[in-house]
Amino acid sequence: MIDDAQPATKPRLPRGLADRGPADLAATERLMAAIRDSYELYGFEAVETPFLEYTDALGKFLPDLDRPNAGVFSFKDDDEQWLSLRYDLTAPLARYVAEHYDALPKPYRSYRSGPVFRNEKPGPGRFRQFLQFDADTVGSASVAADAEICMMAADTLERLGIARGDYVVKVNNRKVLDGVLEAIGLSGPENAGRRLIVLRAMDKFDKFGINGVRMLLGAGRRDESGDFTKGAGLDVAQVDKVLSILEAKEADNCGTAQRLANEFASTPRGYEGAEELREIATLIEAAGYADRVVIDPSVVRGLEYYTGPVFEAELTFTVTGDDGAPIRFGSVGGGGRYDGLVARFRGEPVPATGFSIGVSRLMAALRAIRSPILGRAKPRGPVVVLVLDRTELARYQGLVTALRAAGIRSELYLGAAGMNAQLKYADKRNSACAVIQGTNERDAAGGPVVMIRDLVLGAELAKGSKDRSDYLELRQKAQFPVPESDMVEAVREVLARHAD
Amino acid sequence: MIDDAQPATKPRLPRGLADRGPADLAATERLMAAIRDSYELYGFEAVETPFLEYTDALGKFLPDLDRPNAGVFSFKDDDEQWLSLRYDLTAPLARYVAEHYDALPKPYRSYRSGPVFRNEKPGPGRFRQFLQFDADTVGSASVAADAEICMMAADTLERLGIARGDYVVKVNNRKVLDGVLEAIGLSGPENAGRRLIVLRAMDKFDKFGINGVRMLLGAGRRDESGDFTKGAGLDVAQVDKVLSILEAKEADNCGTAQRLANEFASTPRGYEGAEELREIATLIEAAGYADRVVIDPSVVRGLEYYTGPVFEAELTFTVTGDDGAPIRFGSVGGGGRYDGLVARFRGEPVPATGFSIGVSRLMAALRAIRSPILGRAKPRGPVVVLVLDRTELARYQGLVTALRAAGIRSELYLGAAGMNAQLKYADKRNSACAVIQGTNERDAAGGPVVMIRDLVLGAELAKGSKDRSDYLELRQKAQFPVPESDMVEAVREVLARHAD
Repeated sequence: MIDDAQPATKPRLPRGLADRGPADLAATERLMAAIRDSYELYGFEAVETPFLEYTDALGKFLPDLDRPNAGVFSFKDDDEQWLSLRYDLTAPLARYVAEHYDALPKPYRSYRSGPVFRNEKPGPGRFRQFLQFDADTVGSASVAADAEICMMAADTLERLGIARGDYVVKVNNRKVLDGVLEAIGLSGPENAGRRLIVLRAMDKFDKFGINGVRMLLGAGRRDESGDFTKGAGLDVAQVDKVLSILEAKEADNCGTAQRLANEFASTPRGYEGAEELREIATLIEAAGYADRVVIDPSVVRGLEYYTGPVFEAELTFTVTGDDGAPIRFGSVGGGGRYDGLVARFRGEPVPATGFSIGVSRLMAALRAIRSPILGRAKPRGPVVVLVLDRTELARYQGLVTALRAAGIRSELYLGAAGMNAQLKYADKRNSACAVIQGTNERDAAGGPVVMIRDLVLGAELAKGSKDRSDYLELRQKAQFPVPESDMVEAVREVLARHAD
Repeated sequence: MIDDAQPATKPRLPRGLADRGPADLAATERLMAAIRDSYELYGFEAVETPFLEYTDALGKFLPDLDRPNAGVFSFKDDDEQWLSLRYDLTAPLARYVAEHYDALPKPYRSYRSGPVFRNEKPGPGRFRQFLQFDADTVGSASVAADAEICMMAADTLERLGIARGDYVVKVNNRKVLDGVLEAIGLSGPENAGRRLIVLRAMDKFDKFGINGVRMLLGAGRRDESGDFTKGAGLDVAQVDKVLSILEAKEADNCGTAQRLANEFASTPRGYEGAEELREIATLIEAAGYADRVVIDPSVVRGLEYYTGPVFEAELTFTVTGDDGAPIRFGSVGGGGRYDGLVARFRGEPVPATGFSIGVSRLMAALRAIRSPILGRAKPRGPVVVLVLDRTELARYQGLVTALRAAGIRSELYLGAAGMNAQLKYADKRNSACAVIQGTNERDAAGGPVVMIRDLVLGAELAKGSKDRSDYLELRQKAQFPVPESDMVEAVREVLARHAD
């Protein structure tokens, strides 16, 4: 019951949230199916956790250090318990694995996908609901698990239509970084916060370049808008040591691993990290992935919980934007080893490693390179059966039923408009074919007929010059009568003309 | 970084939420795909709205009158705006249509699916997150739109493997009920609350029978637990009039429509409702659906916003539960016309009608009848390549890569256990095949071989009597060596033995 006295509510979405139409949904569906196929080929199995969890079970592992209370949507339920909307797919997996630990096969390879939520100020390309697609191996301490996930990421990108050479999966190891931090005197729990500031500064290498990182490691950095970010407060020697590792990449994986071992492995932890990278390099080499999975010491990843190898999948090509400026998509996924997350629940370390794809960003990139996996920009609409004589609804409905029985997507026009508006409706649906029956057709001398209208050819005719030599033939193909009994066949013929 | 001093967090889910494994997810996927195919055949197109909306845009149209502030998860975002998690898929659609009204084709046929959330006390079969699948036609005032949705619901249930005769789609019209309420003196805005109490009492007919409804229409009803529900306070004559309509069903649709016109259409609104039902009856008859789409005056639907025809899809068969008692699944979907919902935003009425499937309940019913659409209870796991010599990881990985290159789901065992535990792991994954290569196989005289193990036959052998005449043949098929170069073919052969 509508209260007329009430002012109308404004229909609007909160910022950072978006509606999605059929073309977008069909493309996402195909994208997700391709990722799923790739992960299943690697033996990963599906699992799904709910969108809501106890706030304490989810924990809080977002990279936004500045606003530690922001980032997560939380609220009390009927029982006065704090619940949160999941902000990623890793924290719920840790809860799931800890809860079902004994029943799960171990190592446990799983994948899952779906929306995650961030209670943040939205901005361009920054949403409060966005899609992730994750794969994780829990219960294997072997770096073969890390190497496998990197190779799977490479395979997945290629399956999506991204050519070899247009992407790279970068690998590094937090242990090497930890070793460097220890070497410059930042070890121990009392330096945990500062270590995180250093790691996050390094993680900005791609964005701010070496000089920006230098400022963030030192006193701090003021951006163009005048906002100042306080730095880690390292002295010059410390800063130089940290910066030198960002550029320690060699021509091949084994070379990089060797250089890390030589220059950055003065601590046991750093040595362990370099050895792990060497092992990963060997596996990648043996599998023939060395051109796509590359050890790169500049990869850091901003999340606190990584404990070993970290990965970043980056697109390396650029496209030209609408304004003529080049666009680089950069990272479309990342991950790493997080041996401590499940331990939050179990009190004992449980090794785990995973990789997360940012589906929306990947989708934007696939659009830019017109990946065939996305399908056509506007899907074809159904066949529309026009309603010219409203007293004959049941008869028109019979025509639609016959089309549907033949497996042809079709619908009865259900509005109140006249013939021209009905044809415009069919065009708006991007339909290829309309079926028309007025009284003339119904009462035709030889029995009832229907007009079959090819809307694609019709639109061509309307645009094109009438001097075309094939004009008459085209016109005949664009609209023609057939006996009712031949309708299905005739519609099929028109649809076949414009099949994908 | 894990703080060892902190007590471990208990891994647990809030009540009314559930994790879902691969078999459940695959079955849901197939179920949803079948519904989607059915809706697309009818010309409906996909749309998706976000999980969060402004609380005022969503409105509140839940049937739970007793606790008007409960039911919805709401919270303030960073901008101090109230947001809510969607509690159904109709309210967000109304916002979507109102926001994009001019750009949409009209009538606008759309479908959408996904989880919805209720902030309610969970109970058996009552979840706080559950799946719905909706279809709606907005912008058509024609009852042909209502009839179409009912027939589509019937087609969809059959596509899911529910046999004709095992379900019924019931149709009624709120206008007829409104007419009766008007006739007994409950018209006008001052009686809106009481009308809703009456409608919800009638909606309990299936649950409490005619006597239960009689009590709810009168003074009230006390249930077995002693809880008292206050009634609508109607007098005996009023109660009798309301109850009589619940049992006004005749042998066929046209008969029921006629009886409603005769006995319950004393007001203009009641007459309009009866005429609409007669029109629906004609369309259903003409389309040959009269055995499955049935006019039934006992259908009410508890939601306030319905303004015309209302529908209910019910399963009519019973199955025997684990305790021997018969289980009837009842309603698996419902809907109706809601001409006022979009008007909340636009100030002018926008006709709309829709149908919502309760996916979880439908799934439970499909399980009970073992619908083939759900697939096997436990999906087959990948081929497992055992790791017997850890120094040869790269070699084993090469075997896996060869299998994957041939499109065979397979994985390298990544744990730390021995051969028997690895085979147990493969069994736990429900794998059909394992590939084994120890030093003997690797260094075989004629070149490296692999052992192909058929895990299904292996399990049969382990269970079965050794006196079987085909024991030797079986044993040979259950595990056999092949040259490395024949591995893919041999694995394929084993998988084909146990294909679905």
